[in-house]
Amino acid sequence: MVSADFVTNAAGRKVPVEVNGRTPPPFAGVGQHHPAGQKAAPSIRSCSDYPRRGDKRMPSLEAALEACGLRDGMTLSSHHHLRNGDRVALSALEAAAKLGTKDLLWFPSASFPCHAPVVDLMETGVVHHIEGSMNGPLGDYCSSGRMRGLGVLRSHGGRWQAIQDGEVPIDIAVIAAPSADFFGNANGCHGPTACGSLGFALADSIYAEKVIVVTDNLVPFPCLPWQIQGNHVDYVVEVDSIGDPSQIVSGTTQITRSPDRLLIADYVARFVKEAGIVRDGFSFQAGAGGIALAFVQFLAPMMREMGVTASFVRGGSTRYLVEMLREGLVGYILDGQTFDLAAVESIATDPRHVPTSPFTSYNYHGKGNFAGIVDFVVLGATEVDLNFNANVNTHSDGRLLHGIGGWQNCLDADCTILALPSMRDRIQVIVDEVTTLTGPGELIDVIVTERGIAIRPDRQDLLEAVRGKGLPLRSLEEIQHEVHALCGGPPRRPIFSDEAVAVIQWVDGTVIDTVWKVES
Amino acid sequence: MVSADFVTNAAGRKVPVEVNGRTPPPFAGVGQHHPAGQKAAPSIRSCSDYPRRGDKRMPSLEAALEACGLRDGMTLSSHHHLRNGDRVALSALEAAAKLGTKDLLWFPSASFPCHAPVVDLMETGVVHHIEGSMNGPLGDYCSSGRMRGLGVLRSHGGRWQAIQDGEVPIDIAVIAAPSADFFGNANGCHGPTACGSLGFALADSIYAEKVIVVTDNLVPFPCLPWQIQGNHVDYVVEVDSIGDPSQIVSGTTQITRSPDRLLIADYVARFVKEAGIVRDGFSFQAGAGGIALAFVQFLAPMMREMGVTASFVRGGSTRYLVEMLREGLVGYILDGQTFDLAAVESIATDPRHVPTSPFTSYNYHGKGNFAGIVDFVVLGATEVDLNFNANVNTHSDGRLLHGIGGWQNCLDADCTILALPSMRDRIQVIVDEVTTLTGPGELIDVIVTERGIAIRPDRQDLLEAVRGKGLPLRSLEEIQHEVHALCGGPPRRPIFSDEAVAVIQWVDGTVIDTVWKVES
Repeated sequence: MVSADFVTNAAGRKVPVEVNGRTPPPFAGVGQHHPAGQKAAPSIRSCSDYPRRGDKRMPSLEAALEACGLRDGMTLSSHHHLRNGDRVALSALEAAAKLGTKDLLWFPSASFPCHAPVVDLMETGVVHHIEGSMNGPLGDYCSSGRMRGLGVLRSHGGRWQAIQDGEVPIDIAVIAAPSADFFGNANGCHGPTACGSLGFALADSIYAEKVIVVTDNLVPFPCLPWQIQGNHVDYVVEVDSIGDPSQIVSGTTQITRSPDRLLIADYVARFVKEAGIVRDGFSFQAGAGGIALAFVQFLAPMMREMGVTASFVRGGSTRYLVEMLREGLVGYILDGQTFDLAAVESIATDPRHVPTSPFTSYNYHGKGNFAGIVDFVVLGATEVDLNFNANVNTHSDGRLLHGIGGWQNCLDADCTILALPSMRDRIQVIVDEVTTLTGPGELIDVIVTERGIAIRPDRQDLLEAVRGKGLPLRSLEEIQHEVHALCGGPPRRPIFSDEAVAVIQWVDGTVIDTVWKVES
Repeated sequence: MVSADFVTNAAGRKVPVEVNGRTPPPFAGVGQHHPAGQKAAPSIRSCSDYPRRGDKRMPSLEAALEACGLRDGMTLSSHHHLRNGDRVALSALEAAAKLGTKDLLWFPSASFPCHAPVVDLMETGVVHHIEGSMNGPLGDYCSSGRMRGLGVLRSHGGRWQAIQDGEVPIDIAVIAAPSADFFGNANGCHGPTACGSLGFALADSIYAEKVIVVTDNLVPFPCLPWQIQGNHVDYVVEVDSIGDPSQIVSGTTQITRSPDRLLIADYVARFVKEAGIVRDGFSFQAGAGGIALAFVQFLAPMMREMGVTASFVRGGSTRYLVEMLREGLVGYILDGQTFDLAAVESIATDPRHVPTSPFTSYNYHGKGNFAGIVDFVVLGATEVDLNFNANVNTHSDGRLLHGIGGWQNCLDADCTILALPSMRDRIQVIVDEVTTLTGPGELIDVIVTERGIAIRPDRQDLLEAVRGKGLPLRSLEEIQHEVHALCGGPPRRPIFSDEAVAVIQWVDGTVIDTVWKVES
């Protein structure tokens, strides 16, 4: 749907010159893009234009959107801490539709299958296009080339960077809040739809021109902790329900039961021990995926045995990390999103379980961030290639099905480990060239599969540290050959159209790759 | 030292057109100045320019200032949470002197007698002038007309407004931190020089181009709570001592023993009870002055007797408020500064004792603030006039001796009560016209002296509420006449020079009054 000029970026990928009317620089290499200019600057407000006694309640989302001066073509943002249980973002877009608004840019931190009806809003012209992670049906819609603008995929840190740098000026932020007071102070810790942190909405609250907090749990002022500060908020709307608790947090997160994946988790644990990375005061990040959870279950007894504790753990929190916190195995959980009930309860009550935001953890256009302080991180990928480049966005058939999350940002850790099976449903994971480049290989140090551990040749320090320690060290090429043999040769490379449907931005706002239309 | 054109503002006061090269609008009336434009926008940074593993330590303040690119004419800011025990601000200015720097604008949130040596730095040209509260010797120096620029007095909220609105761009903020980690996360709660909140330094950390954190208590990452976020910080400097604990917080704050002042406090307590303002869920603010503390001591038993609790209390915290919090008489302390040891201990350990900043509490150029939500506030003043106008900056001889603090911001409370003796050391407090106008009478509802309680005639609601309740209600005129009679007539009005030495800014950045040179 978009015809465009293309350039080849520093990673050798063809990327569009223009993206939705902007001209983001092409990827220039890790650390090579040097931003200039000033941060975005919202309008100066005056207390004389706000209710004298602090009560900012409005009777409905429609009324609040009208009061915000909603107009065609505006950018409306939302956050995804309610995940697939969110009822607010769609309500806001539907309220905008009722008001007759057209051509909105919807700017969620991520979208989920529960937002599938936005496809209709795009078909009827209410929503022009989406910038943000599109998990599932919306990704499929984007892949089909029917969206009027390009999808723009950013990491959590990249979304903060884009807002902060003025790349995406937000007109109206709609913030679903599990608890809020009439002034707009809000948090995700308490209430019937508690989701833990609200960090993904923080940039929206600070930089958007207008901010609406939507809550189903209005509490007396002051709502504490004020993860979102009412001083950034224009209106507060009370609704019956902001979401479906059963889809917001899991009752409990699930560890993989696959023997292959448990083996991978075990390899990762043995690697970080033998490499000397697990030592007193170390730090790590591991997500909520099955392998990462299993890794944590191998790590904990190892730490007990070694008599070491971690200074902190970053990242999404689960009951496994909460148990380690309670036991004293980790000093702090610096939490970006809260995945299960045990974690929600912990963040609400334990001062060592600290909500963070993409600003503190991930923003590359700040004065440093936490990601670079982490000793090691355990991540996944849909594909890796022989240069350690990795893809987390598309499948090998080219379909855009996943967001970036914090994945790109986490690559700044001192040791980045990708833990992945060498095949998924007979699809080979180690390819000659990744379908989509999400992260450059120079930032990926170790790839762990059930067939062995591959260390980047230029991490001589790691290679030497683990030599002779009995780990199944192999080259990526060896593992790939083995898989080729099993599968009857290398995978056939699908042929893509030359029509761009989305771009992948790097942590510094440059364009690292293009997602191409998939003919269905 | 400054010759200038003057205009008469909406309060009828003569104010300079130009202030230190800027042209702030003259006071236009309460709520009448409507700001335009965008907030200040600091430069976009990149992680690629900061230490990859987060360690921002520098060996000395001099080295850090050099790394910040310190140049002549820059603006260097500091905060005053260490009060008269601060050793950091002067060290920073002296380091700048050693580096040969000239003509700095020093922009402290307040200065104290411990900063008296800055007079020498002004005499030798290192510091050009001071904008910020000048308590004691620096106020005297300013009053004498020897400072090269105009003093600019702002409220705590007004200082946030000035930074946020870009009125005062800070080149380098030097933040004394009782606890910090190598990344720059910092707080005032912990460590040998703990001072409680660091809220006065928050705007500096967010908006300054360069930020140096100076600490005598380096803790392992992550330093929690991060009242100052390391993501805003450029350098961290470790020193032996940032201040003298005995001058930072009192061992214990002192209630007045003066019978007159105790009577005033009792009148205030009776007034808020009889006016129906003390009721279940009410809120209040009372400072750390002798009368305010005594008022709190009268309030607590009254609340117990009435069986009511306060939803929150704002303002500087003392052991008296902490006791009320622990007893459950107040739900939360929303704390701007922490005055004694009991309060420091409480803010470090009790999640209901919450550090706030001038942004949340006082900034008039935000989307509301907490000050307007407070039910009543008990404040002091050096002078009031018959129109309820008040002065907190100068004495009746014209000398500039006090900052504004949060005083102007607090006037937004639903009921503003000034509690003051009718005479101080034979100086009459109720005058025909205030020497300096700090706050307009239309925002001051009640003036309580030992000779009676005066309610503004247009607060008919208050007048009716307390009628017939046995309170000593009088007009300001009556009280003034009584004091005239005791003192042998009205005070002689000193004659001031027509040379401006400082201006008083209103909460919206307009100039409400001028401080004139005092001939000594």
